[in-house]
Amino acid sequence: MRVPYEDLWDALRGALAALGFAADRADLCARLFAETTRDGVYSHGVNRFPRFVGMIRAGLVDVAATPVRIAAHGALERWDGRRGPGNLNAHACMAAAIARARESGLGGVALANTNHWMRGGTYGWQAADAGCVGVCWTNTMPNLPPWGTSEPRLGNNPLVFAVPRPEGPHVVLDMAMSQFSYGALASYRERGEWLPVPGGFDASGELTRDPGAIEASGRPLPIGYWKGAGLALMLDLVGALLSGGPGTQGVPRTPETETGLSQVFLAFDASALGTPDEADRIVERIVDDLHAPTAAGERARYPGERTLETRRRNLAEGVPVEPSIWRFIHDI
Amino acid sequence: MRVPYEDLWDALRGALAALGFAADRADLCARLFAETTRDGVYSHGVNRFPRFVGMIRAGLVDVAATPVRIAAHGALERWDGRRGPGNLNAHACMAAAIARARESGLGGVALANTNHWMRGGTYGWQAADAGCVGVCWTNTMPNLPPWGTSEPRLGNNPLVFAVPRPEGPHVVLDMAMSQFSYGALASYRERGEWLPVPGGFDASGELTRDPGAIEASGRPLPIGYWKGAGLALMLDLVGALLSGGPGTQGVPRTPETETGLSQVFLAFDASALGTPDEADRIVERIVDDLHAPTAAGERARYPGERTLETRRRNLAEGVPVEPSIWRFIHDI
Repeated sequence: MRVPYEDLWDALRGALAALGFAADRADLCARLFAETTRDGVYSHGVNRFPRFVGMIRAGLVDVAATPVRIAAHGALERWDGRRGPGNLNAHACMAAAIARARESGLGGVALANTNHWMRGGTYGWQAADAGCVGVCWTNTMPNLPPWGTSEPRLGNNPLVFAVPRPEGPHVVLDMAMSQFSYGALASYRERGEWLPVPGGFDASGELTRDPGAIEASGRPLPIGYWKGAGLALMLDLVGALLSGGPGTQGVPRTPETETGLSQVFLAFDASALGTPDEADRIVERIVDDLHAPTAAGERARYPGERTLETRRRNLAEGVPVEPSIWRFIHDI
Repeated sequence: MRVPYEDLWDALRGALAALGFAADRADLCARLFAETTRDGVYSHGVNRFPRFVGMIRAGLVDVAATPVRIAAHGALERWDGRRGPGNLNAHACMAAAIARARESGLGGVALANTNHWMRGGTYGWQAADAGCVGVCWTNTMPNLPPWGTSEPRLGNNPLVFAVPRPEGPHVVLDMAMSQFSYGALASYRERGEWLPVPGGFDASGELTRDPGAIEASGRPLPIGYWKGAGLALMLDLVGALLSGGPGTQGVPRTPETETGLSQVFLAFDASALGTPDEADRIVERIVDDLHAPTAAGERARYPGERTLETRRRNLAEGVPVEPSIWRFIHDI
């Protein structure tokens, strides 16, 4: 079914208020869930809402907890998420990083003790909407084996890069260090589709395109084999070191109990380094070069390019929502 | 042949002085080349020296040019490399980023108009030796096709993450966005070996493990297919936007003429956020978890872990140098 965007936002806002969120926090949290689905990132929008509610009811997400800054050194800050709602915590920390970037050119906020941020790209769009370059990442529960081993000890640690474009959609990359996120694996499985490329190992250690086999083995393939495993480790190390959090190995090992995460939010305000025109010209020249058809007639897209198209369609025709999810929201 | 480390450094220093380097710059530039080979990164050490000398003789690398800061906003700076030696420029800019991080918690230097930095890991080690987290990347000439196309429009844009360890080797990841760097492809080809996993497309568009076929087609595989291509684009966009440089599409398309690069150097000084002990404990806990054998007896390594071993051996037994390279250095 398709639900008008405002109705989806309203319904989520009402559900969150019923769960004890203060009015302004219910509004923002509902918007972040609704926007994610509106923008076509179905795996991380309202389809995650039941799990989020489950974690609230289990006491793992504290609806009243706001993140607090516990240490600062210049434009680098350490915040405690106090196990509050992950998307509200992340939004507050990217906002703080942007504020530091306005003053100091760049700003960094490391957040410990938080919950799943849902769609990482949200905070990239947030930075780009503010005219900043945004970079952020999160660790996760252990769900990715280090290269050469069969036990998940690394997180797939999504990494986001965002570059603002004055016209047209921002360039926003939001990617896990596994070839497919668990959300993506579930989507393929639910659609009865095989993965387009091998996405992990089956129980016998063979590379496979069967999403269910990878969910079962717990052995997704890191992007670039040893390289993605290495980058996942670095993101966890830097996140834990800056935030003071425990790292992936300290995170409970089921999606329903995954809490105590560490995240890093970086913002860069390039506007004072050159003219705004110059920055726009640089970005547009790179995008134009990417878009120019090859001799073979191929044309590349950049990450996030289709977002505004999807957004327009979902705003015009309604946002796709599973009937079971829609009922779930209303039953709260 | 194996050459005592000090002899290698001396010979390089002498060659660079003969090429017009000032004494202190000849010393540092020689050390960076010699250290790279000493540490076992043979593709990016003295084996690159002949190409470097060729670019000096062709007037593409200006031995007398020092990088200058041309704009600053707080702890974010823009530098002009003035086409000086790439490793000296990069070393100066990471040093500046570290200095900003001491004052402001984190520091960022974006460098345009520079040359190949040789081994990117050098600047990660530099940050970690200073007790900082270091992150840096460079763009390159177009050598990687955007996903879904056959023409190289992206660079393979090496990315470095470094985390200091008080004891034992730092954790330093230095990776190109292609599954194998061109340096690595050449090394496999010269050893007559096939790649361990598919590393690109051959001339007919089929995935292949033949390094020579990929060098010939110019179509290496991005790590994680579309994901690595996306990350390569983001690194170029951010580097160009912050540095004011032209991006990969403005870089001449042969290794012998590759100049006008853009690079980003970030340093984070976490020491003021918590106790140094705490930081060390966090890193060691993550490393210990990675090292603990799995039930199947597997044991993972972290990026850079073998560096000190290789360094010790090459210091004790001499640094491996091709006789032709050794002669080349002495003939200058």
